Amino acid sequence: MNDTVWHNFHLCAQGDPDRTIADAALAVRDGKVAWLGAQRDLPGEFAAWPRESLSGAWVTPGLVDCHTHLVYGGQRADEFALRLAGASYEEVAKRGGGIVSTVRATRAASEAELLGASAARLEPLIAEGVTAIEIKSGYGLDLASERKTLRVARELGRRYPVSVYTTFLGAHALPPEFAGRADDYIDEVCNTMLPALADEGLVDAVDVFCERIGFSLAQSERVFEAAARRNLPVKMHAEQLSNGGGAALAARYRALSADHLEFLDEAGVAAMKEAGTVAVLLPGAYYFIRETQLPPIDLLRRYGVPIAISTDSNPGTSPATSLVAMLNLACTLFRLTVPEVLKGVTQHAARALGQEARHGELAVGRAADFAAWSVDTLAELAYWIGRPLTQRVVRAGETVYVRDAHPIL
Amino acid sequence: MNDTVWHNFHLCAQGDPDRTIADAALAVRDGKVAWLGAQRDLPGEFAAWPRESLSGAWVTPGLVDCHTHLVYGGQRADEFALRLAGASYEEVAKRGGGIVSTVRATRAASEAELLGASAARLEPLIAEGVTAIEIKSGYGLDLASERKTLRVARELGRRYPVSVYTTFLGAHALPPEFAGRADDYIDEVCNTMLPALADEGLVDAVDVFCERIGFSLAQSERVFEAAARRNLPVKMHAEQLSNGGGAALAARYRALSADHLEFLDEAGVAAMKEAGTVAVLLPGAYYFIRETQLPPIDLLRRYGVPIAISTDSNPGTSPATSLVAMLNLACTLFRLTVPEVLKGVTQHAARALGQEARHGELAVGRAADFAAWSVDTLAELAYWIGRPLTQRVVRAGETVYVRDAHPIL
Ligand SMILES: [Zn+2]
Ligand SMILES: [Zn+2]
Repeated sequence: MNDTVWHNFHLCAQGDPDRTIADAALAVRDGKVAWLGAQRDLPGEFAAWPRESLSGAWVTPGLVDCHTHLVYGGQRADEFALRLAGASYEEVAKRGGGIVSTVRATRAASEAELLGASAARLEPLIAEGVTAIEIKSGYGLDLASERKTLRVARELGRRYPVSVYTTFLGAHALPPEFAGRADDYIDEVCNTMLPALADEGLVDAVDVFCERIGFSLAQSERVFEAAARRNLPVKMHAEQLSNGGGAALAARYRALSADHLEFLDEAGVAAMKEAGTVAVLLPGAYYFIRETQLPPIDLLRRYGVPIAISTDSNPGTSPATSLVAMLNLACTLFRLTVPEVLKGVTQHAARALGQEARHGELAVGRAADFAAWSVDTLAELAYWIGRPLTQRVVRAGETVYVRDAHPIL
Repeated sequence: MNDTVWHNFHLCAQGDPDRTIADAALAVRDGKVAWLGAQRDLPGEFAAWPRESLSGAWVTPGLVDCHTHLVYGGQRADEFALRLAGASYEEVAKRGGGIVSTVRATRAASEAELLGASAARLEPLIAEGVTAIEIKSGYGLDLASERKTLRVARELGRRYPVSVYTTFLGAHALPPEFAGRADDYIDEVCNTMLPALADEGLVDAVDVFCERIGFSLAQSERVFEAAARRNLPVKMHAEQLSNGGGAALAARYRALSADHLEFLDEAGVAAMKEAGTVAVLLPGAYYFIRETQLPPIDLLRRYGVPIAISTDSNPGTSPATSLVAMLNLACTLFRLTVPEVLKGVTQHAARALGQEARHGELAVGRAADFAAWSVDTLAELAYWIGRPLTQRVVRAGETVYVRDAHPIL
């Protein structure tokens, strides 16, 4: 790979708009950052390297989308339309809607079909600067289908210029064939599915949907214990619809993150702080299901719990393929500040994956993964609604996306 | 221009997803629709024409964005960030924020600068299928600056493949130099600005911001009378923040539309119905300013008032450059149905411009303006958050935008 000095840009190396360098330069060798700083301080050894101008853009680390359910079959747009037309939950279910329909479509899809559908959702994320993404299973709900999902996630990471981190979320919902036998299904998750998939190298972390309509605290803890036996880090869908104490349990297991958290209480916040667990907030789901209970932002701030922001990309509650759109939602609906949301999709999101040494920050020796933005101020990333802002996306020093600034023929 | 038969698509010719044709064909001659219908019914005379496949896409009429403030100087992202960081309205004003800052930047910008900044906001709209757009003045607030704004709007229509309809909104806000003399400013609007700009052919319609923080009913009526003297149609920003009776006044003047309408009452709805005035709902502004008062959707439905949806693209309350994003917002926040929002950006939006004979519907003899969408069902247009969905955009039979389905290098 060729050495390059990128120049003529403003640098926000940590994703923190309060710490920036005007008129910066960044030298890349073998895909890694060899030097970065103010252009005028560029050491002489780089002076003869080939130069590429970023035309005054702002540069941030590549974005990290730390909570997605990107791989699934079908979509639920017609269900969305039916609900708006007044259909009850029962009618929707009778017409084959709800999560069961996604499980059915995911099970029925071939690996190639699943890959194609998921790739079409991944491409717009990358084009908006995402260079690392977490992808959960959880719409297969049997060994073969969960395996297929995680294999597709891994394959996306091989085919696309993005680092994929897989999460086994077998405990996402109760599959129809286990109706009324949730504990038996958790047996299956812990004793069959997780060990097999972990052996196949398909699992980077383990997640569970802990909720009245999901799995109980006791069932969640069994999943965490099974993960611990394989030395796999855990995370949890917690406190989304009610305060069940999931986040505190997650903290006891040193979870990487607890996610959603609308109904989190102070004890849970304190436990997360103590454990170093990241709070992953998902404004797309909050918006799409018209939740009114806000996550306890002030408590999270007061305790210093790191806050990450993610798409929660999924067909039922957040059909989102834009992490940048989440910045506006998080600012508008949660009243997070611009520095908070930018750190939330860079350094804090990387930490939510346990990958803060690899992603979320530009520094010497790290991969040269960055997004260049055609904006005058970083606040524009959170301000505009539906405006394409990337100028280019670079991963490991290679340009992987260039936006056509004048696409109209 | 060459004759073409477009084929291999699903057709939604009126923007109404309840009236569609599967496996359709559309013949274009000299930029106009020569024939459209089911592929199997294509008359023999078109059989030898060159054919272009739309690969199974869904086709709608070109979208119509019927309420925008697209032409302005600067942006207010830093003000957005300041507010989130806790700055009071007074502090923001002291730092030069608020609408005054946009007026200042708009006045200071050259016509070329204004054109460039506005074009950058227009391009993503066209790339999402917009083939007709309304653009208001209202950030100049003096004759020269309002003229500059409207000239830029006209120039956008010449340079880009989009029909631009201009609206003179001199009565948008009180310019600083008229502080405390609103009636004098209305004199200026009615007696100097409007006649001069109308004489120059820059004004297709006249709008006024009727609100406690805008202009009174009496002042609004004076603007409407001035418009009537020039035979110009009117419209109104009405009932956005309070119920002031603006919509009823607008209806008395046979306004094309009354816009926003969160606080509209039943008398206003009845008056609009009687006058044929379109209700333009602006979910981007509702969302961005965190309004909680919903427009009276059920009353509008009951009275049969046509509902249009628009971006309200503006720097202070709806920094949106995506009409498709408004579909999701209108469904999610207003609970409009998918057929309602699709008609709201096609036939009803065209009617809000008094241009229902030219836009918002595909029919024989009309311009071949359409968008082809890479979706399985039209409901996807309202369902996805931040997903690029256009396959191509065609205006007057010519392809003006093609989306790269695989943009990642
Ligand atoms: Zn989730
Ligand atoms: Zn407006």
